[in-house]
Amino acid sequence: MIEMLKVLRLGHRRERDKRISTHVALTARALGADEFILTGEKDDKLMKTVKDVVKRFGGSFKTNYSDNWEKTVKENRKKSYKIIHLTMYGEKIQDIKREIKEIKNCLVIVGGEKVPKKAYELSDYNVSVTNQPHSEVSALAILLDRYYEGKELGFKFEDGEIEIKPSRSEKIVEKK
Amino acid sequence: MIEMLKVLRLGHRRERDKRISTHVALTARALGADEFILTGEKDDKLMKTVKDVVKRFGGSFKTNYSDNWEKTVKENRKKSYKIIHLTMYGEKIQDIKREIKEIKNCLVIVGGEKVPKKAYELSDYNVSVTNQPHSEVSALAILLDRYYEGKELGFKFEDGEIEIKPSRSEKIVEKK
Repeated sequence: MIEMLKVLRLGHRRERDKRISTHVALTARALGADEFILTGEKDDKLMKTVKDVVKRFGGSFKTNYSDNWEKTVKENRKKSYKIIHLTMYGEKIQDIKREIKEIKNCLVIVGGEKVPKKAYELSDYNVSVTNQPHSEVSALAILLDRYYEGKELGFKFEDGEIEIKPSRSEKIVEKK
Repeated sequence: MIEMLKVLRLGHRRERDKRISTHVALTARALGADEFILTGEKDDKLMKTVKDVVKRFGGSFKTNYSDNWEKTVKENRKKSYKIIHLTMYGEKIQDIKREIKEIKNCLVIVGGEKVPKKAYELSDYNVSVTNQPHSEVSALAILLDRYYEGKELGFKFEDGEIEIKPSRSEKIVEKK
């Protein structure tokens, strides 16, 4: 069972990637990760967006920036984190589901368009969610879902300001 | 069992949404949908990107544009398609998984930031993938995964020009 799961976004480009990287971060949070680490260009606006979501919707999701992704990956390796790199070229997730579920502490690398070879080499697992081109956001969602076996859909987020109540037909937002 | 599954992207804005809408379309394709329908602003570049992926990676995924999403939804209703609208306000997917799995033909509405009330009203199901804010891309991925029960990860795409072979450590692209 996972104790700590971090998601590292590789090579963020502020202008081009702002929305995709935000979706990566929010997907990480919503589906059970503990921390988001941005690498590449700094992006205060993105970080603020994610922090605002945490404040409003609760939970203890952390956001961090690293100006040296390689160093961050190596530091986490030393702390016995296993490194999973999501890539369409990797091994099929359904083939190594059991193996990766044994991992206690995990750092997931989410690449962009040009991933340095080093990312493959530093990873314990290069994992694909289909070998088709689609989206790092959906790949991350499926990976987290496989880890938590669907339980992530019921995770609770404590100490938020608002909570959405599921409804068949309307928007129900409750203040806490 | 699904016979036909279409994904309709609501209210595309060419400049702002180009990448997210592309990821929605490619996720739809990679995870088993049959067709992508863009609504909102026309976007030839996006359509070309998706068509190019189909040509290179195979399969029979269709792309279409509609300048009137409401009409398109209503037409599909008449053809006895069930309409599922993905929204963070909707019923929890894990609570209605069995119900939606009975659906034969399905149109999934994927919203953007401002979804007209009409989208809720015209839908048979307003479905949430967690009631947390994250991403229409990851919500779609989880929905398709629940439909196809993980089998979508093994779907084959025929008649492409190239195929990626899963690998633990390198990029293997085969020409067909």
